[in-house]
Amino acid sequence: MNFSLLLLILIQILSVKCTVIINGPDNNVINKCNLDPALIAEIASYKNTTEFIINEITQKWGTKFFSQFKQFIDIFGARPSGSKILEEAIDHMIDLALKNGLDGVTTEDVNVPHWVRGEESAVMISPRRKNIAILGFGTSICTPPQGITAKVIVVRSFEDLNTINESQIRGKIVVFDPPFISYGKTVIYRTQGATRAAEKGALATLVRSVTPFSLYTLHTGSQYYGENVTKIPTAAITHEDADLMRSLQTAGKEITLTIKMFNTFDMKISRNTILDLKGSEDPRKFVIVSGHIDSWDVGQGAMDDGGGMMISWFVPVILKYFKITPRRTIRSILWTAEEPGLVGAAAYLKAHENELMNITFIMESDEGTFAPLGLDIAGTPEARCVIQEILKLFSPIDKITESGSPGSDITMFIKKGVPGASLLNANQRYFWYHHSEADTISVQNEIDMTNCAAFWTAVSFVIADLSIDIPR
Amino acid sequence: MNFSLLLLILIQILSVKCTVIINGPDNNVINKCNLDPALIAEIASYKNTTEFIINEITQKWGTKFFSQFKQFIDIFGARPSGSKILEEAIDHMIDLALKNGLDGVTTEDVNVPHWVRGEESAVMISPRRKNIAILGFGTSICTPPQGITAKVIVVRSFEDLNTINESQIRGKIVVFDPPFISYGKTVIYRTQGATRAAEKGALATLVRSVTPFSLYTLHTGSQYYGENVTKIPTAAITHEDADLMRSLQTAGKEITLTIKMFNTFDMKISRNTILDLKGSEDPRKFVIVSGHIDSWDVGQGAMDDGGGMMISWFVPVILKYFKITPRRTIRSILWTAEEPGLVGAAAYLKAHENELMNITFIMESDEGTFAPLGLDIAGTPEARCVIQEILKLFSPIDKITESGSPGSDITMFIKKGVPGASLLNANQRYFWYHHSEADTISVQNEIDMTNCAAFWTAVSFVIADLSIDIPR
Repeated sequence: MNFSLLLLILIQILSVKCTVIINGPDNNVINKCNLDPALIAEIASYKNTTEFIINEITQKWGTKFFSQFKQFIDIFGARPSGSKILEEAIDHMIDLALKNGLDGVTTEDVNVPHWVRGEESAVMISPRRKNIAILGFGTSICTPPQGITAKVIVVRSFEDLNTINESQIRGKIVVFDPPFISYGKTVIYRTQGATRAAEKGALATLVRSVTPFSLYTLHTGSQYYGENVTKIPTAAITHEDADLMRSLQTAGKEITLTIKMFNTFDMKISRNTILDLKGSEDPRKFVIVSGHIDSWDVGQGAMDDGGGMMISWFVPVILKYFKITPRRTIRSILWTAEEPGLVGAAAYLKAHENELMNITFIMESDEGTFAPLGLDIAGTPEARCVIQEILKLFSPIDKITESGSPGSDITMFIKKGVPGASLLNANQRYFWYHHSEADTISVQNEIDMTNCAAFWTAVSFVIADLSIDIPR
Repeated sequence: MNFSLLLLILIQILSVKCTVIINGPDNNVINKCNLDPALIAEIASYKNTTEFIINEITQKWGTKFFSQFKQFIDIFGARPSGSKILEEAIDHMIDLALKNGLDGVTTEDVNVPHWVRGEESAVMISPRRKNIAILGFGTSICTPPQGITAKVIVVRSFEDLNTINESQIRGKIVVFDPPFISYGKTVIYRTQGATRAAEKGALATLVRSVTPFSLYTLHTGSQYYGENVTKIPTAAITHEDADLMRSLQTAGKEITLTIKMFNTFDMKISRNTILDLKGSEDPRKFVIVSGHIDSWDVGQGAMDDGGGMMISWFVPVILKYFKITPRRTIRSILWTAEEPGLVGAAAYLKAHENELMNITFIMESDEGTFAPLGLDIAGTPEARCVIQEILKLFSPIDKITESGSPGSDITMFIKKGVPGASLLNANQRYFWYHHSEADTISVQNEIDMTNCAAFWTAVSFVIADLSIDIPR
């Protein structure tokens, strides 16, 4: 075997290796792909179109796009489920789509929770007097008018709680003080804390805010009362006050608090907003891009999920403007009432359950619109291979992960077998702001958000236009 | 000239350069030192003692020291000037010194401001309704009982304000929205904003919180009414609300706010606390180490300046315990009423003005007790050379800067010609917490604070024990 031949073989082996091994998910499993060379070539042929989309948006549309977003946030601010302001915000986004020339806009009514925060306060009255800032969790019940005055017991975890005799919990306020491990792991103290404490006879719960960083910052969120358990008031406290109460308890001090929480609850009609750019060849098939338009009542819901809603709204609007029509329909959905528990998405799924096979891919951006990095995907290994190949068009925005549950609203579709993805972005500080007064337009950045919008538009276009459906 | 000789000369030149050139101040001026070799040798001879002090404190005292600090903060929390809790906190630190075996403890009465925050609120009533979080500045007057309802004008700077016709300011609420450049440069909008706006007929001022980073965080602080100017209410707002109001104004919206601020003001007697470790040879000469024991009324004053107060309190206490007595007296001063304007320090200076020549060096830690880095010094070039030589004992904690105004309370002594220094430490995030609810024990760290205490003790001991006074 001569040297040139050996070299040629080596190059071929190496080049084959280079094409068949893709970036693995976070757990470093490496997947081999065996894509049809014709498909690889087809995907590569989109380069001109994706470059056009990216360049046009980033170079000509950034300022207008961001100023429309800023205006939306400035005008409406927080948009809680069931509120009048949420419906006005939905109308605004519909009008804006129509004004921009998109005609395929419809809405679907959804029955949504309408929990309205009233006055909330807590005061430590022993061992010394100090105001304790609190922020009730959505659906928390009220205290009696005179409030609840009771001794405090601080626990680190449900395991801690289980080791304590019921007689030591009964009649007390349980403070859950878990360290922040990850949002997914720590949020259970917010969602289930009241139920778990009530099972042992507690009168109320306060939960260390679920965030890795605090400047005496309160974070609200949803919580759920278990069946057959007494409902008790439940609210967030700051890291700082949780630290203080733990420290006082460790020092043997008896802590007494008075908590007052008032709110109202009823149901209202809201709407999922559907913006279609009808496909040119197979309009009954959909690629869905989405974000939720509602927010918590604190802050402005600019990051969660104003940004994600805005870039998803933008996809059909700008493609229509560019006169770039994919084979399949691109359906942008602005989910309503995500925050109280994916209410809008659940209603859509129920109404469209027999159309799931027509959703070839479902996308959501609900984890920030900081600098885009790639996609967090869910689907078969074959789907992964196709998406990975598509992401090569966007290098260096080509990172791929598989967290297991991309997005929030779309998770229920993914569990039904629809392949999908959420936007990977440089959201390291996401939970610093999440569900707090600090979630405002000040967190958002024109360049990053424009880059997200450009990537989101171009990648969803390719998926919607490809000759094959994403494998499932 | 042979090669060996040349080499020898080069080595000598280089080694001379190495010994005579010290780290310059921040502006990179390099200073040549010409210290007496005997002094250099004397300073080097302290290595055993400084190592003993550092090792003992860091290896055996950290947990006890920090737990005494934590207990102090947990028990007393915020300690505003003129409050009963501040006097109780002073008593506590005196008792703790006595219990630890230090007997030279005295106090000196000081007449201090006692400004007590009452209810404060602001609501934007147009273009849309939104609560605007506010935090009054110390000495701000109240609004009338019904509040002040007025249109808003947002300005970036005093220069901006000056370009606007008085008729556009009169009767309005001026929002100062300066970018954070540095604390020293930006704080003028807090300290002088009310006066400057009142000169043009404004009814009240709100000032973007003086911090480089916000999670919807309010920062209070002192402010001063100019003479012959109408006093108007003045308070901090968050970056987020400043951004919002600027954006609304830019979009041509008319902003109206209702502000309510209530508080009381009188004068009280407080005390500077003086803890002496009497010098063995020249007890009439002092090296002062200090920090202030009062704080703002928000947060716990753990960082500003609980930490600095605690490490300064510790110096005579631990040296006494170690039975290490310097030639000169080490005087630890816990200043009272620093926050309303260096009131305790000014009273001390007035009472001790004829003893200034006896203060051979004055030190203060009021910029955090994060990981220690060195000293920020003020004095003659000769003083700098001596301090630099001393810092070599503590390498790598040997950084030296000359900001021009080390410390806060001690600045007035330095202006009178007393050489001095403040603690350089890794306080990059200091202004994130400063004067806010986030200044709590959660910011402090046992290891960093113990390292600060060890360095502070050892370096002040060497300065107090040296055969020469620090040159002036």
